[in-house]
Amino acid sequence: MPPFPPYIPPDFTRPDLAAAPPASTEKAPRDGVLPAGFHATSNHPEYVHLGGGRWLLAVESRMDAVLVLEDEGVRVVEPRLVREGERVVMGRAENGEDGIYVHTTGFEPLADASSGDKFGFRSRGTRETPFSRSYDELYDILRHDRDNGSIVWVLGPAVAFDRDSRDAMASLVGAGYCHALLAGNALATHDLEAAFFHTGLGQDIYTQALVPRGHYNHLDVINEVLRHGSLERAMAELGIGDGIIRACLERRVPVVLAGSIRDDGPLPEVITDSGRAQDAMRVHARRATTVIALATQLHAIAVGNMTPGYRVMDDGTVRPVYFYVVDMSEFIADKLANRGSAQARAILTNAQDFMVNLWHNLRG
Amino acid sequence: MPPFPPYIPPDFTRPDLAAAPPASTEKAPRDGVLPAGFHATSNHPEYVHLGGGRWLLAVESRMDAVLVLEDEGVRVVEPRLVREGERVVMGRAENGEDGIYVHTTGFEPLADASSGDKFGFRSRGTRETPFSRSYDELYDILRHDRDNGSIVWVLGPAVAFDRDSRDAMASLVGAGYCHALLAGNALATHDLEAAFFHTGLGQDIYTQALVPRGHYNHLDVINEVLRHGSLERAMAELGIGDGIIRACLERRVPVVLAGSIRDDGPLPEVITDSGRAQDAMRVHARRATTVIALATQLHAIAVGNMTPGYRVMDDGTVRPVYFYVVDMSEFIADKLANRGSAQARAILTNAQDFMVNLWHNLRG
Amino acid sequence: MPPFPPYIPPDFTRPDLAAAPPASTEKAPRDGVLPAGFHATSNHPEYVHLGGGRWLLAVESRMDAVLVLEDEGVRVVEPRLVREGERVVMGRAENGEDGIYVHTTGFEPLADASSGDKFGFRSRGTRETPFSRSYDELYDILRHDRDNGSIVWVLGPAVAFDRDSRDAMASLVGAGYCHALLAGNALATHDLEAAFFHTGLGQDIYTQALVPRGHYNHLDVINEVLRHGSLERAMAELGIGDGIIRACLERRVPVVLAGSIRDDGPLPEVITDSGRAQDAMRVHARRATTVIALATQLHAIAVGNMTPGYRVMDDGTVRPVYFYVVDMSEFIADKLANRGSAQARAILTNAQDFMVNLWHNLRG
Amino acid sequence: MPPFPPYIPPDFTRPDLAAAPPASTEKAPRDGVLPAGFHATSNHPEYVHLGGGRWLLAVESRMDAVLVLEDEGVRVVEPRLVREGERVVMGRAENGEDGIYVHTTGFEPLADASSGDKFGFRSRGTRETPFSRSYDELYDILRHDRDNGSIVWVLGPAVAFDRDSRDAMASLVGAGYCHALLAGNALATHDLEAAFFHTGLGQDIYTQALVPRGHYNHLDVINEVLRHGSLERAMAELGIGDGIIRACLERRVPVVLAGSIRDDGPLPEVITDSGRAQDAMRVHARRATTVIALATQLHAIAVGNMTPGYRVMDDGTVRPVYFYVVDMSEFIADKLANRGSAQARAILTNAQDFMVNLWHNLRG
Repeated sequence: MPPFPPYIPPDFTRPDLAAAPPASTEKAPRDGVLPAGFHATSNHPEYVHLGGGRWLLAVESRMDAVLVLEDEGVRVVEPRLVREGERVVMGRAENGEDGIYVHTTGFEPLADASSGDKFGFRSRGTRETPFSRSYDELYDILRHDRDNGSIVWVLGPAVAFDRDSRDAMASLVGAGYCHALLAGNALATHDLEAAFFHTGLGQDIYTQALVPRGHYNHLDVINEVLRHGSLERAMAELGIGDGIIRACLERRVPVVLAGSIRDDGPLPEVITDSGRAQDAMRVHARRATTVIALATQLHAIAVGNMTPGYRVMDDGTVRPVYFYVVDMSEFIADKLANRGSAQARAILTNAQDFMVNLWHNLRG
Repeated sequence: MPPFPPYIPPDFTRPDLAAAPPASTEKAPRDGVLPAGFHATSNHPEYVHLGGGRWLLAVESRMDAVLVLEDEGVRVVEPRLVREGERVVMGRAENGEDGIYVHTTGFEPLADASSGDKFGFRSRGTRETPFSRSYDELYDILRHDRDNGSIVWVLGPAVAFDRDSRDAMASLVGAGYCHALLAGNALATHDLEAAFFHTGLGQDIYTQALVPRGHYNHLDVINEVLRHGSLERAMAELGIGDGIIRACLERRVPVVLAGSIRDDGPLPEVITDSGRAQDAMRVHARRATTVIALATQLHAIAVGNMTPGYRVMDDGTVRPVYFYVVDMSEFIADKLANRGSAQARAILTNAQDFMVNLWHNLRG
Repeated sequence: MPPFPPYIPPDFTRPDLAAAPPASTEKAPRDGVLPAGFHATSNHPEYVHLGGGRWLLAVESRMDAVLVLEDEGVRVVEPRLVREGERVVMGRAENGEDGIYVHTTGFEPLADASSGDKFGFRSRGTRETPFSRSYDELYDILRHDRDNGSIVWVLGPAVAFDRDSRDAMASLVGAGYCHALLAGNALATHDLEAAFFHTGLGQDIYTQALVPRGHYNHLDVINEVLRHGSLERAMAELGIGDGIIRACLERRVPVVLAGSIRDDGPLPEVITDSGRAQDAMRVHARRATTVIALATQLHAIAVGNMTPGYRVMDDGTVRPVYFYVVDMSEFIADKLANRGSAQARAILTNAQDFMVNLWHNLRG
Repeated sequence: MPPFPPYIPPDFTRPDLAAAPPASTEKAPRDGVLPAGFHATSNHPEYVHLGGGRWLLAVESRMDAVLVLEDEGVRVVEPRLVREGERVVMGRAENGEDGIYVHTTGFEPLADASSGDKFGFRSRGTRETPFSRSYDELYDILRHDRDNGSIVWVLGPAVAFDRDSRDAMASLVGAGYCHALLAGNALATHDLEAAFFHTGLGQDIYTQALVPRGHYNHLDVINEVLRHGSLERAMAELGIGDGIIRACLERRVPVVLAGSIRDDGPLPEVITDSGRAQDAMRVHARRATTVIALATQLHAIAVGNMTPGYRVMDDGTVRPVYFYVVDMSEFIADKLANRGSAQARAILTNAQDFMVNLWHNLRG
């Protein structure tokens, strides 16, 4: 049995929904410009009423996109990608009165709904929240999704700064627990620095010793890769035998490296245009079943913005998408939780311990 | 008298420096690829020995760039901008033995050097460090640099989320205390959201009330600007009369908005390519005399990387460049302090209080 | 007009309350031991039904105390202070069905109640919450309470580590904005260290310079006070002319110093027994109208526990008690907000800026 | 071979030490009052010169105490415990010129000393420091000290808020890895709350569910223990079969519970006088070989103050005392590291993960 609750679709025979008008649309006045009064999506399941009681569920949704109505159905589109003349769904009511219904309770445990109890689950985790069950649930989900879903990792560079956490991540990739890796220039650079020099920003990833002139290490790594023309070629020719990137290349796990203004280099694979980088990340976010974002504020928020709270599987069933944020700071975890989605779960801890825990429990 | 210590250049008649060889160079093998063994710059004053006791100070320097030797002198170039065949200065010793001298003590107070006291100034500020003098010094520097320098602000969006801090920043711009503003899509978007709706991410910037459907506000703002084609046009036609961006437009203060993968929109002025954004930011960083980075980790580190610790003024004098980081978190402040530069100064506090304090003391 | 909402008492003619039984009591079986099933107080106004529609409001309440019924009324007593045989009010329902009514909406703005709007005020502040209005309201409250209330300060030592914040606090005391000061050994010690040596833990409170052998300073201060026998005598004989403690002595503002296991010394005035210290603090907490807790987790939580959310004034009117927490950390602020009380307000900032802001705005 | 470096005593034949005068003393003028100019101890090995080249090592030392000279040797005494007329060692030079020598390099790895390398180990850990080796070393030390040392745990209540971390700590006690437990009222209360109700402050320690009226749980627990008169009796009569306190009672591991002004209750075993609590904690701190302080700022600093950096074993050998601080916050870890001692090691992570990791690796 899958480790998540079944999806309960809305009851469209409910009087208020039965009386709902069809959704209206207006044409986009220009490429990338929306008609005033457009409807923006949440990451909950959203249904568009086509009239006559035909409600269409938007698939591969995300936050802050718009719904474009087409003959074949409804498409979720980022505003910047809307083309002139496309029919944009209008209206801001979420309860059906504009022909749009946002279904926020599709995955609610039945017991809770029936108990009428005002007590429930704390909405915000802090460092003092008990996380034992969060871990147990995560292990179950990952075991399930390894073979039946799509696990997307979003990594900050700190994962590569410690020997054991770097090894653990590489092992998880090797064992099939990663279907896509989204990160930045720094993660790849420091993973390679560790392979070349056993350091991260010049500090030994095991002994903590600062290596003389170690601040050159990441610059030398970047230069070597640029000299060879690609990560893959550089790693082959330089005989890089370990690490996170190595494991991804071996398993043919797609890696998206998004550029930022903080980058040295960058490595040749880094996508420097933020729009194109979003597009490349969105390919994996739209089909994710579980996302784990670790030790990175920028990338976690970016991927959080583009990940739906549910996924329509190929057989038509609807399941929740899990989104885990692992960070040391309540502030950052809260920021993500404030996305307006019930599915973001924070585990407040050090990324190193998290990785080591995970591998220890999943290596079976 | 300027509120900073005089620059004491190195004594090149010192035996070890007098005996130093000329710096050697190698040609870059390809565009963006460096010869192995290249010298990477710090943000301290660095001198290149041309031979015969002629030492050349690199101007408009930065961290992690290389020195390219040309007929007219030495140029500080980011590795990705090095062109094939350019002569890159080689060597990693910083003490002259490779013909390169990194001068770390040019701005040291004389008293300290002579006292031989092992006690000094704490290298890392925490929330419990006394900041009274830091503020007093900052006021002096800003008053001096308003007319005799170049003050560069690096702002996170939080500055626009509070009425008083937004007003304070706009007033500082209006009073001449800002020669360039470096920020992201979010700062500009939320500054305009405040002007249109008196909210930031849907929360009233004074009363803290969450406005119904306020999460549409920033999307509507972006769409309006895109419809008008530019920030300037949108603000004129919509009658935007206040705010930080408004103040910059009025004073013709250059604004660089760098894109990121977190962006909605973005606004038309946002530079979405991280390399081109770095180039645009570097124009101001290279000539900055004071930088104030506020409530933004990504931009603070990016600008920190590209700002020299000194500036050669038009009259040939050398002065320190001040770099202030204002943040709530010791972790982020430490990250910047670890840049290897003595000049980064952290003030651990809320960006709102900082702004209000500053304007209160500078408005005269 | 006072800067707070009027108190709306419960309507005891409401059918459910009209039908409520009288509260029941049981005798405490032993000193400091409660009958099982005792009622514990919140910090909201709580009413005890004596029968016949006579409801008695508990005065000078606090969290986690019990209600002892006496001939003259109902007394709020800490469990450890309950004496054998005293009649403890029983029952855990808060809606009247046990004869106890907890009135959580007495200070709610009428507009909100009537609007039926699901939007309201964010329950938790973060560093990005706009604080302009919080400050403005605080200024109003303090101006009002200086002459018509009781302002209790709860201070961590950091307030004395910076020259300007120490001066600001002393000035606030001098101007009548402090009716009681609750702190620990460290605040008093470092305030005196600043007076003697111009340092805090050996660091100059203005220049940030670490003074040679400065770690002796606080030990020497403590020893001097012990030699003189009391703070007051030591300050007189040593000619201490400034500081927070000095200002309190001059204005005859009561100072309660509670001991902790972290203390050096302690100073003679420190109350080393935690029960007796709680009793001494409670004298001021029970009559406070505004509490400001600054840069101290231990003391803020301790005072938070013992401060009611309302105060019955001498003329019988009921008013809210304001409780401000000023800290750098969302975690600590959240811990206090989780006290289950609506009245705790967090301002996330550095204690120094807070103090300086306050004095700047109140000095008139 | 023990997992720590050998102790290299000072070379007292060195000219400067050979020329050192004998230490001078002055009589304490009154109980708890020191002669001006007293010497205060660090937590490094300190030697007192008795004259004629006889140097005496202070045993069971601590920070901020004084040295009392007696016929049988030198005793380290907290200032408040000095009695009138006792001979207090005078002088503040640490290099021998006052007859006192503070030996800061006794445990330095020889390699480092000889390398003359300016690079070394980072003095401050952050969340991004690699901790793999810190863990490996800690496992070695704990395995060694279980049978050959004294492991003292200092615990905040958060350890009992999570099922797995509470179980892990109880198991570590059961397996002999704890020779003394220092904590506060809250740790014991919430450990018992978990045993009674499976909650911590009313939140289920596994499912995170908030239990209805769960805020009564800790009050009921305290009342039950008070009714039975002692922890031991309450646990026996109520059939408490698990938890940290239970494990300590079974293994006869001493538990010191220090009171604070934040306490409800407190439990009967809590020592409410801060001086007496310090005395009881110091019994264990003075003979500790390893201290692990977890998720408690107050207790970690208190125990840090009273723990020496070295221990003279019964056979006369000198070994380092390890002091680990486990916390989420750089600020708190830095505060402890600033104790002026080289031996404090921070691991920045969540206490829950730390406990689970530890038990997983030590259960063998």
